[in-house]
Amino acid sequence: MPGELKTELKSKSRAEGKLVVLKLGGSVVTRKEKRMTPNLEAIKMLAQEVAQADVEYLIIVHGGGSFGHPLAEQYRIKEGFKERSQIEGFSKTHQAMLELNKLVVDALIQHNIAAFSVIPSSCIVTKAGRIESLDNCQIDMLLNMGLVPVLFGDAVLDEDQGFAILSGDQLVAVLARSFKASRIILGVDVDGLYTADPKAHSIAQPITHITLADLKSRISAIEQTRVTDVTGGMLGKILELMPAIGAGIPTMIVNAGKRGNLYKALKEQEVPGTLITKE
Amino acid sequence: MPGELKTELKSKSRAEGKLVVLKLGGSVVTRKEKRMTPNLEAIKMLAQEVAQADVEYLIIVHGGGSFGHPLAEQYRIKEGFKERSQIEGFSKTHQAMLELNKLVVDALIQHNIAAFSVIPSSCIVTKAGRIESLDNCQIDMLLNMGLVPVLFGDAVLDEDQGFAILSGDQLVAVLARSFKASRIILGVDVDGLYTADPKAHSIAQPITHITLADLKSRISAIEQTRVTDVTGGMLGKILELMPAIGAGIPTMIVNAGKRGNLYKALKEQEVPGTLITKE
Repeated sequence: MPGELKTELKSKSRAEGKLVVLKLGGSVVTRKEKRMTPNLEAIKMLAQEVAQADVEYLIIVHGGGSFGHPLAEQYRIKEGFKERSQIEGFSKTHQAMLELNKLVVDALIQHNIAAFSVIPSSCIVTKAGRIESLDNCQIDMLLNMGLVPVLFGDAVLDEDQGFAILSGDQLVAVLARSFKASRIILGVDVDGLYTADPKAHSIAQPITHITLADLKSRISAIEQTRVTDVTGGMLGKILELMPAIGAGIPTMIVNAGKRGNLYKALKEQEVPGTLITKE
Repeated sequence: MPGELKTELKSKSRAEGKLVVLKLGGSVVTRKEKRMTPNLEAIKMLAQEVAQADVEYLIIVHGGGSFGHPLAEQYRIKEGFKERSQIEGFSKTHQAMLELNKLVVDALIQHNIAAFSVIPSSCIVTKAGRIESLDNCQIDMLLNMGLVPVLFGDAVLDEDQGFAILSGDQLVAVLARSFKASRIILGVDVDGLYTADPKAHSIAQPITHITLADLKSRISAIEQTRVTDVTGGMLGKILELMPAIGAGIPTMIVNAGKRGNLYKALKEQEVPGTLITKE
């Protein structure tokens, strides 16, 4: 039994091709306009939908929203360690993210999902803000045990600049590629990509499907669809996800704030949003 | 500057010989008799005393008390992965510990200590319940940046048995040896070691100083001083700490529940308790 268990847990291939990497945007799980305020109704609804969809292998990554971003910005964590006064902010940003993560994981556990918090800053050191390896996070072992790893955008140590902000989007792309995910679902607070900013232009049309090549040529149009945040707005998200999409992992952007959308996306049912594929 | 910073952060020796490893027992930071109940007054008092003592290099490890232990016991996490029903408990035990850790770190931050949560299960995989390496936890980098890493007894993945309980005491001993600590302070809810169980025998005398050799010969007497918990009672603690004491790191056991004791111990002032030294 111990030998068998060991092989089983250390096996690298179990989730390959069956794994869904789900991002829950900070704008969905928090109230972005109010500092350190979770959107508890949304968190509960999303936990319900994840439970109902019952995906075999799932990794969840959530954003920072009004928890991580204001502190990260205030202390300029993204720029790296420049002066001692930032140390306090590095510690506070991490702590705020742990608080939000707790709320998300608690809700998942309440819906009988074997969610397990994996803390980025405890297993990842970036180099100039980029992930070099996920090996220490033991994601494989957790997936093989039937657990749902839950990570988040975090303030992390950085080899070159002392510390950095590791965005949830970068995590999603690297996780999806490293563990050969079948799909990425990006749950945001808009209905996907548009041909123009729908808030500014009434002629803006939703994009239901786009290839990577098309997307690249349209990218300047997307640039203006959302207000930027410290991890980049929608353009930042797309740029981070491109290597994963380029590796052949289809990415669905849905408005996870609207009831039922996340469930449908997880079940591969038709749902309003934008599907981005390699070809 | 980046080159310099890199050398500075990666330097292994900065805290060597100046580091204090402080354990805050679960019986001090929680109310052991009531499930999932923190002792917020004690946590606040301890944070105050840590702030006042202003130790140059400090690592804090706290226990589980009424947060981690009842769940770990209920789901028999210590025994390893035997059946699927334990998975839920593995996840809940970890989550409970994250909750307690948040309270401890929040209190430290409120007292202007640059505390930084380091989550054992995100950077340590044990082998049959024993730590094999702390390298992935980046303790050195945190200490060199002037941060106070805060760890805790946790439910962790285990190479041989799927999962295990990593006790705070094991962490303390391994941390102290790995980072060449100058001292260990063990904050518990009793006044140190006695010649017999003080609750059962009125002739019991407090032991103010004991050598490792003496301690070993007395160990059978200590065995009965406290009720056992899942990580072992006082005997378990002592056995875990022996390799560190044997490596020449003096260990002071104090009643951290009594105001002023922890401050005095951190400042190396006289304080009731038991000092254990190698010789």
